[in-house]
Amino acid sequence: MEIKARDLAVVLNAKLEGNPEATVTKLAKIEEADEQSFCFLANPKYYHYAQTAKAGILLCDETLEYNTANIAAALRVKEPYQAFQKLMELYAAMNSSEKTSGIAKQSYIGQKSTYGENLYLGAFASIGDYVQIGKNVKIHANVSIGDHAVIGDNTTLYSQVSVYHHCKIGANCIIHSGSVIGSDGFGFAPQADGSYKKIPQTGNVEIGDNVEIGANTCIDRAVIGSTKIGNGVKLDNLIQVAHNVEIGDHSVIAAQAGISGSTKFGKYVLIGGQAGITGHLNIGDGVKIQAQAAVIRDVESGKGISGVPAIDAREHYRQLAAIKQLPDLIKKIKELEKKLEDQ
Amino acid sequence: MEIKARDLAVVLNAKLEGNPEATVTKLAKIEEADEQSFCFLANPKYYHYAQTAKAGILLCDETLEYNTANIAAALRVKEPYQAFQKLMELYAAMNSSEKTSGIAKQSYIGQKSTYGENLYLGAFASIGDYVQIGKNVKIHANVSIGDHAVIGDNTTLYSQVSVYHHCKIGANCIIHSGSVIGSDGFGFAPQADGSYKKIPQTGNVEIGDNVEIGANTCIDRAVIGSTKIGNGVKLDNLIQVAHNVEIGDHSVIAAQAGISGSTKFGKYVLIGGQAGITGHLNIGDGVKIQAQAAVIRDVESGKGISGVPAIDAREHYRQLAAIKQLPDLIKKIKELEKKLEDQ
Amino acid sequence: MEIKARDLAVVLNAKLEGNPEATVTKLAKIEEADEQSFCFLANPKYYHYAQTAKAGILLCDETLEYNTANIAAALRVKEPYQAFQKLMELYAAMNSSEKTSGIAKQSYIGQKSTYGENLYLGAFASIGDYVQIGKNVKIHANVSIGDHAVIGDNTTLYSQVSVYHHCKIGANCIIHSGSVIGSDGFGFAPQADGSYKKIPQTGNVEIGDNVEIGANTCIDRAVIGSTKIGNGVKLDNLIQVAHNVEIGDHSVIAAQAGISGSTKFGKYVLIGGQAGITGHLNIGDGVKIQAQAAVIRDVESGKGISGVPAIDAREHYRQLAAIKQLPDLIKKIKELEKKLEDQ
Repeated sequence: MEIKARDLAVVLNAKLEGNPEATVTKLAKIEEADEQSFCFLANPKYYHYAQTAKAGILLCDETLEYNTANIAAALRVKEPYQAFQKLMELYAAMNSSEKTSGIAKQSYIGQKSTYGENLYLGAFASIGDYVQIGKNVKIHANVSIGDHAVIGDNTTLYSQVSVYHHCKIGANCIIHSGSVIGSDGFGFAPQADGSYKKIPQTGNVEIGDNVEIGANTCIDRAVIGSTKIGNGVKLDNLIQVAHNVEIGDHSVIAAQAGISGSTKFGKYVLIGGQAGITGHLNIGDGVKIQAQAAVIRDVESGKGISGVPAIDAREHYRQLAAIKQLPDLIKKIKELEKKLEDQ
Repeated sequence: MEIKARDLAVVLNAKLEGNPEATVTKLAKIEEADEQSFCFLANPKYYHYAQTAKAGILLCDETLEYNTANIAAALRVKEPYQAFQKLMELYAAMNSSEKTSGIAKQSYIGQKSTYGENLYLGAFASIGDYVQIGKNVKIHANVSIGDHAVIGDNTTLYSQVSVYHHCKIGANCIIHSGSVIGSDGFGFAPQADGSYKKIPQTGNVEIGDNVEIGANTCIDRAVIGSTKIGNGVKLDNLIQVAHNVEIGDHSVIAAQAGISGSTKFGKYVLIGGQAGITGHLNIGDGVKIQAQAAVIRDVESGKGISGVPAIDAREHYRQLAAIKQLPDLIKKIKELEKKLEDQ
Repeated sequence: MEIKARDLAVVLNAKLEGNPEATVTKLAKIEEADEQSFCFLANPKYYHYAQTAKAGILLCDETLEYNTANIAAALRVKEPYQAFQKLMELYAAMNSSEKTSGIAKQSYIGQKSTYGENLYLGAFASIGDYVQIGKNVKIHANVSIGDHAVIGDNTTLYSQVSVYHHCKIGANCIIHSGSVIGSDGFGFAPQADGSYKKIPQTGNVEIGDNVEIGANTCIDRAVIGSTKIGNGVKLDNLIQVAHNVEIGDHSVIAAQAGISGSTKFGKYVLIGGQAGITGHLNIGDGVKIQAQAAVIRDVESGKGISGVPAIDAREHYRQLAAIKQLPDLIKKIKELEKKLEDQ
């Protein structure tokens, strides 16, 4: 598909410079662009490419200088990043090859399950009994949904997702391949002989609206009640959320983080990759937990923490700086000792 | 389903206080309970809820004081936690919507495979050739089992589990969704040109009886012989168990821990979340490895270790306490230096 | 299957000692061997077993002394490890029970998809539209492949693998169960009200030739362009590779490592288990990153780094050694202070 500079200028409400007939056929990063590419520059770190890169059309701010020998046309806007995002959405919508509706012949829907208009159900997707599915839901190939589960409107489950029985997923959610919603929490009672007895996990998982969950992430069902994921929460890949955890609205958790049982998070929490949070804690609103931190105590709202075990982030950086000096410090102390002896 | 206090009193062999006709319709945590809820209190940390929470029926010990205005009936027993567990098991059994038997029309069973009575085989489950399946086995939707695998009696595999060829799983096991049993170990021989050549992984995985494995956990097959998971072992979600690892009976491993190749664990080992253990180690019976520890040496039976690299846990705490003092220490040394110079 | 020492001596071009008619029926590690076992010894750490272990046939170097009372025959070669690998490949080829071709009746292939000769397609495998599959490809049960994906010759995808739309996998690759190729990158734009808006992930994943990917590993698609895995790269289980990451040829990454967005690696990089690498970094050729390290800065070619945050590995070991001395150091400083006061 070819797009002309003058057409994009209209779509983006941009000031056009250069050849209005310049055409592009693809979206590219400026460092990989060629004459057929549409590119954008919003980060000053990459501005130097404006002098060296070839591009069909460059989207940029109102003043950036670029090499007109290499770049056929420029589209100037006040906020190039926002204009670019608008364009990305258009592009994604146009290029999407995803099915939007239709129930594969080789799929399975159990008894008494219901679904709204426009369902897409891929090949070998399996829906249990008494499942409630909203409208415009997309369930890709090889997904498994247990009995009594509820899936809200406009939600997409990619291939290989497992939703266990009685779990509830809100509207406008996206869950990526291989994620598991509602597996049993890790609860075992130690017995007198050193073995362990399973504690039944009788609860479920409840996920709010506008949640996105990455690939191969696990959210365990509650021992009693619900493991709760708030509205607008974004979870990356390979995250562990244990039973009875509650994550407040609009919190964001990076890949491979792990949260132990019954810990409760406020809203707008940020958790870095590979961080670990022990069980039964209360973490306030807006807390920022750095990557690889080990959180073992409650954290007040608004705090930033890091380290193993996690402490106030500034104090942690002070400790790291001090550790750097430690080998020299040891020498210095030996010198001091010697001086004192020599006196 | 409604249950009356007087009926539960009989089931639990409990002393009944308050209204014997009080009814409950659900199980709830005391902090989320209402007049329809059955609750229990066994942890002194939560005793204060006995004064403020509403509940239909409260299970508690023989002396706890509670607010009779808010709680319609109490059931008193010597060991409320144990009584509660008994009740949970009953509840789980009654509320279970899981299929107990039946072979889905849209499932696949290969040649020469056998299975015992009461098999449940979900939609799109695929069983290879020469597979041996015991009695009362439940294999949920979209599970894949490779040729020559063996699955013991009363074992449950949840949806999306993969069992590779020739792997053996014992009796009374539970494996949660997305876990992979028997993928190739990570073995490559470096070549002269800097590339790597695959070392064939000719072994299998053998899992004992009464083992539970969480969601999206990986257990690699042995290069030769077997990767071995003992009886009664409990593995959480997203754990990595490399080729030729052996885990002793009744060991418990928390989420996201990782174990490198050929390391052997005794019985009753506890491993915290996100801990890493390098390869070719011997870890004794009853060893406790803290969360996020990095184990790089053999560990004697009974030891508790933590830190990166992991050392005796008490020594590690002593080091952590010392690091806290380090920034002040640096100041102090500067003062000492100055004093000495001033003399 | 029984094999005789004299036949193996020919296959391996080895010098035979002991009984040429000695037979073995299995491959075993020397510590688990019996009279029916074929074993090898190449690692001096295990040489002592040559005195105590029973074995049918032992493969070893030209000089190792062994107990002829327990070991019926020995095969001597210059390089026992390489001879053993040759044997393992033969063994794997003979014992492989894997299907080599055939399209299961209960599989699904969408419109306009093409495939080469010798395709194996397992039960309930789902192939989208416009997919291009090379020759000798093995796609196991319950695999899902999205529209417009490309799979190269001789590549194997084990059960439960998900390949998203438009992703490309090279020739001679192996991808283990549960791995996800091409899920959306984790990109969200913060909004004025504290919520997040999804940034469309318009790119794909491109995987080179001779790549092996472990179980439950995730590789996200690029926001624009491609997330790139070079030729000969080996990824272990449960690894996170974020959007727009590029991994150079013949790099090796151990289990549970995580790489944030847009970081670029040179060739021949080694990354230890559970290491974390932040986004937008440049890591040179041949860099060695230790297990559990946290890499937060660019790394020059050839460097070895470790620690949190990661620094030069030798400097890190120097710091670790210093920390060990810290509790004693604190005592010493108190003594110095006292001495000075006493003067």
